[in-house]
Amino acid sequence: MAPWMLPLIYSLIFLQYSPSSFAKFQPRYFPSSIIQPESRSLHSTNKLYKTKYFTQILDHFNYNPQSYLTFQQRYLINDTFWGGPKTNAPIFVYTGNEGEIEWFAQNTGFMYDIAPEFKALLVFIEHRYYGKSIPYGGDKKKAYKNSKTLGYLSSTQALADYATLIVDLKNNLTAIDSPVIVFGGSYGGMLAAWFRLKYPHVAIGALASSSPILQFENITSQYSFNNIITQDFRSESENCYKVIKGSWEEITETASTHQGLELLRKSFHICKNYISGDYLESWISTAFIYTAMTDYPTPSNFLAPMPAYPIKQMCKAIDNPRFGNDTFAKLYHAANIYYNYTGDVSCFNFLDDSDPHDLGGWQWQACTEMVMPTSGNNKDSIFPASTYSYMGHAQYCQEAYKVQPRPTWITTEFGGHDITRVLKRFGSNIIFFNGLRDPWSGGGVLKNISKSIIAIVEKEGAHHVDLRFSTTEDPEWLQNVRKREISIMKGWISKYYHDMGDDSHTH
Amino acid sequence: MAPWMLPLIYSLIFLQYSPSSFAKFQPRYFPSSIIQPESRSLHSTNKLYKTKYFTQILDHFNYNPQSYLTFQQRYLINDTFWGGPKTNAPIFVYTGNEGEIEWFAQNTGFMYDIAPEFKALLVFIEHRYYGKSIPYGGDKKKAYKNSKTLGYLSSTQALADYATLIVDLKNNLTAIDSPVIVFGGSYGGMLAAWFRLKYPHVAIGALASSSPILQFENITSQYSFNNIITQDFRSESENCYKVIKGSWEEITETASTHQGLELLRKSFHICKNYISGDYLESWISTAFIYTAMTDYPTPSNFLAPMPAYPIKQMCKAIDNPRFGNDTFAKLYHAANIYYNYTGDVSCFNFLDDSDPHDLGGWQWQACTEMVMPTSGNNKDSIFPASTYSYMGHAQYCQEAYKVQPRPTWITTEFGGHDITRVLKRFGSNIIFFNGLRDPWSGGGVLKNISKSIIAIVEKEGAHHVDLRFSTTEDPEWLQNVRKREISIMKGWISKYYHDMGDDSHTH
Repeated sequence: MAPWMLPLIYSLIFLQYSPSSFAKFQPRYFPSSIIQPESRSLHSTNKLYKTKYFTQILDHFNYNPQSYLTFQQRYLINDTFWGGPKTNAPIFVYTGNEGEIEWFAQNTGFMYDIAPEFKALLVFIEHRYYGKSIPYGGDKKKAYKNSKTLGYLSSTQALADYATLIVDLKNNLTAIDSPVIVFGGSYGGMLAAWFRLKYPHVAIGALASSSPILQFENITSQYSFNNIITQDFRSESENCYKVIKGSWEEITETASTHQGLELLRKSFHICKNYISGDYLESWISTAFIYTAMTDYPTPSNFLAPMPAYPIKQMCKAIDNPRFGNDTFAKLYHAANIYYNYTGDVSCFNFLDDSDPHDLGGWQWQACTEMVMPTSGNNKDSIFPASTYSYMGHAQYCQEAYKVQPRPTWITTEFGGHDITRVLKRFGSNIIFFNGLRDPWSGGGVLKNISKSIIAIVEKEGAHHVDLRFSTTEDPEWLQNVRKREISIMKGWISKYYHDMGDDSHTH
Repeated sequence: MAPWMLPLIYSLIFLQYSPSSFAKFQPRYFPSSIIQPESRSLHSTNKLYKTKYFTQILDHFNYNPQSYLTFQQRYLINDTFWGGPKTNAPIFVYTGNEGEIEWFAQNTGFMYDIAPEFKALLVFIEHRYYGKSIPYGGDKKKAYKNSKTLGYLSSTQALADYATLIVDLKNNLTAIDSPVIVFGGSYGGMLAAWFRLKYPHVAIGALASSSPILQFENITSQYSFNNIITQDFRSESENCYKVIKGSWEEITETASTHQGLELLRKSFHICKNYISGDYLESWISTAFIYTAMTDYPTPSNFLAPMPAYPIKQMCKAIDNPRFGNDTFAKLYHAANIYYNYTGDVSCFNFLDDSDPHDLGGWQWQACTEMVMPTSGNNKDSIFPASTYSYMGHAQYCQEAYKVQPRPTWITTEFGGHDITRVLKRFGSNIIFFNGLRDPWSGGGVLKNISKSIIAIVEKEGAHHVDLRFSTTEDPEWLQNVRKREISIMKGWISKYYHDMGDDSHTH
């Protein structure tokens, strides 16, 4: 069985996060080369945000005694650009996703870049059960103990958290009439889009970046995710694609020979504590998957420090004639671009299960409602052919948490089937951005639905690239995407003020 | 303290249902005088519906082991008019409210009346915790035992029930593309409107009749409800209004005198087991409140058997010169129109707490999320002046259920503030019907919000009068209301078919 078929590894989690966490994340936020003077100065003086906490209800939908428990929800706030309540200046809210919120704030520079122009208040709300927003008194061990305590980790509860917090915050700021726009990327983008659909009275619009809200049930092909990765590499060079595609069998065969694992360990610089062929294949494929997601046009440090256009760099390594026919050397140098671009790592530790961005809760979410079939590989895939197995997934969830997934719940609660027909005459003010280099784009909304439910599609783009801090090296297409987003959001706000009949605003 | 100030009696429940249940409900559904031949034959041959059950999830939003419990949810179905899945013929769903569903089905004849024209499938779904849709294995004693077991009785869970059941039903009928329209009156109308807003992918439109979705927080005046009742009686005759307004003090004074209660007992034909001045006042005011709600233009039997225009009849009794200055005789004969129109009751039993339509769960809902301030009376009110007391309500809820209400939850979850601004550019296909004789109309949507979110307001109308079976005696305004509703719904369906680009339908 190929490694991505192992439940523990092929996990349906959003960022394909693996509990054995091969990646050596050593985040250096905002390397100086990629930030603008303003954001750099914000960062250097530690003024990106102030941290606050809100007493949040554990269960919004039931009224059991348990439901009246509360927890402290973290949110980050920056009011340095805000025009204030008197002018009904807008509030930009990031609907946090499956990780600690500081990481998302620091990787959503777009909100900082545009806040001065909009005179916007910036708020980043952490998703329950992640980061510091842990129920049961912040005791993560207790909160993650079993399905009884983890049960309140769900998307609907998270959305209700955001509504409750925003309503309360606006009351406290006497900013009831300030329009709110929600922003989010990836799962956070799904939450932003769903928030606009479910809470139109709280947010006037949503920028949902790289949000695969159609990656559920059979709406999007299970092969789409890996086909996009395949296409990403193949578009760089046919040889690059072929070498990678051929490598899996070579690794498996080598691993089964006498001294084969030691050869692999040496070739890939794996630490001495543990190696297996399956783990190695998973480790390498993880690098390709994450690199496809973060194939940004400028140097970045989201999942790991990376050069600009990292897929191109990987294929350069693979196509490098210096390595002759040495597949392992080619792959090692490619993987190194993702795992060790800084050159700091002497060996890769397969037993390191650190989780610097606290993404572990996604495993639970994937085992309950976030059942997103992405792991299929057809015969042209850069990975070995395989079929998504719901049964395998369900079995894993039973073993890991004693829960049964509800694979049809997300489409029941949020829709997805025939989305164009449903939203053509319903709802408004959503931007769906997708970059077609991003494997998640297959599950995104790629066509305009109505005059105000807009798809922005950029063939060179990767996973929520539009939300990143602008840099002086940004290509024109990226500048244009952001300009368009700004212009659309200005339209929402201006219509809102117009509807309000309020002349006291700043526009 | 006036009786309506007593928590047990002034209850915020939707139908002002009182647990001591003064009303002697002896429902005789569809008295032959008010039904059409077709509906009569449907009824007489017991063909109004077939009863079915659906295995429903207890908790849609969490994933605790408890949440995986299920219960049997009752629904009623009638497919005699349905055009079937091949023609994508529509499905009309009644979103059940706070009572057993058969009662609502039998009082929502409009759906039967129009089903043939639409070739519609009719489905009436019972609200969880009411009728036969009782969690915990149908054991009502257990389900209603305490806040732990009652906790899952909430509006959001009910809406998710409806979505889940409808999606499953459509799959089972292979009728995925059949458009669904939801219908509801009163709380059921609130659920219908909210369902369209929250589940646009499940229902293409909603007819929300007499749904006071704005009777929350301070959106609608707490005096509005009783002011409308005041206006209803005053519009019949100034004397009628004055007699009723002056009667409360007279009752209170009489009750405090020697032999006063016996005099009252005799005057009002109260049974010998129990009487008090407060209970008597509550009993009389309940008659006025319910009669205002059901001031229908034809004889009816919704809350009790009643003549056409019952307020007019009540005021006729009060204004009858035969009774001279005998306030109690006037009031008795007025109350008798509501409580004993059939003349069957020999004495009224204040200790009778029967609940034939199983409305008791509303008490819990009012103590958790359905906090609707309606009990205020300003100085012109037909009832003694009083102010709504949230604290009193909360105290009652603490004593009765050990729960604290969440008075801001409904507006957080469903909105309500600035509804015109919010929905002007969001959502579509909702009809809000309100009759201005209905005290609940004060909390209704009374103005068009957009081209497809329409308010139909009829000054002669009472509580969801439009949803009743048509009769040959219906006034023209009522016929016109229904014609307009039919025409609007036809528009929704025809646009839906157009968007589908499907030529196989019947229209």
